[in-house]
Amino acid sequence: MSPMTSTLILLRHGESTWNSLNLFTGWVDVPLSEKGQGEAVHGGELLKENGLLPDVVHTSLLRRAITTANLALDAADRHWIPVRRTWRLNERHYGDLQGKDKKQTLAEYGEAQFQLWRRSYDTPPPPISEANEYSQAGDPRYADLGTDAPVTECLADVVVRLEPYLRGPIADDLAAGRTVLVAAHGNSLRAVVKLLDGISDEGIAAVNIPTGQPLRYDLDENLKPVIAGGTYLDPEAAAAAAAAVANQGR
Amino acid sequence: MSPMTSTLILLRHGESTWNSLNLFTGWVDVPLSEKGQGEAVHGGELLKENGLLPDVVHTSLLRRAITTANLALDAADRHWIPVRRTWRLNERHYGDLQGKDKKQTLAEYGEAQFQLWRRSYDTPPPPISEANEYSQAGDPRYADLGTDAPVTECLADVVVRLEPYLRGPIADDLAAGRTVLVAAHGNSLRAVVKLLDGISDEGIAAVNIPTGQPLRYDLDENLKPVIAGGTYLDPEAAAAAAAAVANQGR
Repeated sequence: MSPMTSTLILLRHGESTWNSLNLFTGWVDVPLSEKGQGEAVHGGELLKENGLLPDVVHTSLLRRAITTANLALDAADRHWIPVRRTWRLNERHYGDLQGKDKKQTLAEYGEAQFQLWRRSYDTPPPPISEANEYSQAGDPRYADLGTDAPVTECLADVVVRLEPYLRGPIADDLAAGRTVLVAAHGNSLRAVVKLLDGISDEGIAAVNIPTGQPLRYDLDENLKPVIAGGTYLDPEAAAAAAAAVANQGR
Repeated sequence: MSPMTSTLILLRHGESTWNSLNLFTGWVDVPLSEKGQGEAVHGGELLKENGLLPDVVHTSLLRRAITTANLALDAADRHWIPVRRTWRLNERHYGDLQGKDKKQTLAEYGEAQFQLWRRSYDTPPPPISEANEYSQAGDPRYADLGTDAPVTECLADVVVRLEPYLRGPIADDLAAGRTVLVAAHGNSLRAVVKLLDGISDEGIAAVNIPTGQPLRYDLDENLKPVIAGGTYLDPEAAAAAAAAVANQGR
């Protein structure tokens, strides 16, 4: 590998208790399921087996990504590395859909509206009200955001709030020669992939990130991937898992 | 409470697999036992019940303290706070005793030598050799220390390497008004307590820190405790646990 490249590893959290219940989660702070904990450990074992050892980890502020990072790094013997956290790596805020059943939502609103909310680039769901039990109003971890805290997001919104963090703190760590692990979510990682690979607003709809499968990007000094789309450490398992994600809600 | 005070919470890791085997551990990076994991969760529940919510956590570089912090913070719903790590919070390096059985060591060297190594302020055990399987030579997390990495320590050595971190990064967080959690080890926390309470070199021998019991210090701007010795959130359980620690190796 050229000395000018640096390595970024993306890791989507393992199954959460709400993934298995098929509910829209977004910013609701649910834990990993037992299966999800196992996925996280397995992801860390893959890092170790491949000698791909993170020097620093970035996580969202959500428990399922944080626990995934903790378990994976422990399995890789890298539990002691520096940790950075940011709301900018959070899952897409699902607005008023948070806490709702995916199948019921599909039945209630129909295929077209359902797919628009799930996969369109720039159509957010209706905003969540403060009175909704799944609202993040009053959550101390977002207090600094004030009225900038989102109440719904489309993928375009995620790209906008994530890009300064990718080109800021993450790029800084990469420029310092550190191997960077990002433990985050399906949509925040799709936003990272869109930015790195220069995928179009339409093209990103077809990209699915599997859970617990480390995705390696070697990047030049302009964050351009050496291999477009990166490389999964376990390509067969990743392809099978991505296909399962694409079929969610069916 | 006066607006001039800030709050520091000390938390000794729960039982490790080597605590239960009664081996000298030091810098050997053993995991928590199942009991130890439960102690960590219980420590976090005590924080939550008492409304004592950390804004930032400092840990050593050792798995048993890191896992304790992860589990306790998750139980307290504070998993998302900033994390800082330092070798300066590590357990005392036990030199050539690392990996040795405490009872065997007592039988082999006699009560006087055993207590000198365990409890004297300034007599370190013999240094560990690089060839010893329990040496940290070559461990990447200490690479930056170079030849300054300890190969044995007495408590006085721990105080010397810990004090700049207490009066630096930890004091900085307290001065910023943050409630600080320190998840660390029996001897590194004894060093903290010695510095905060101004305990003599002789007096610190009698101080025992129980595992998994949050110890709260409210400190003025000079790090002087409002209540000498701090306050355990569960005083009865802490007293019983401290008595058990004092009897280790018997």
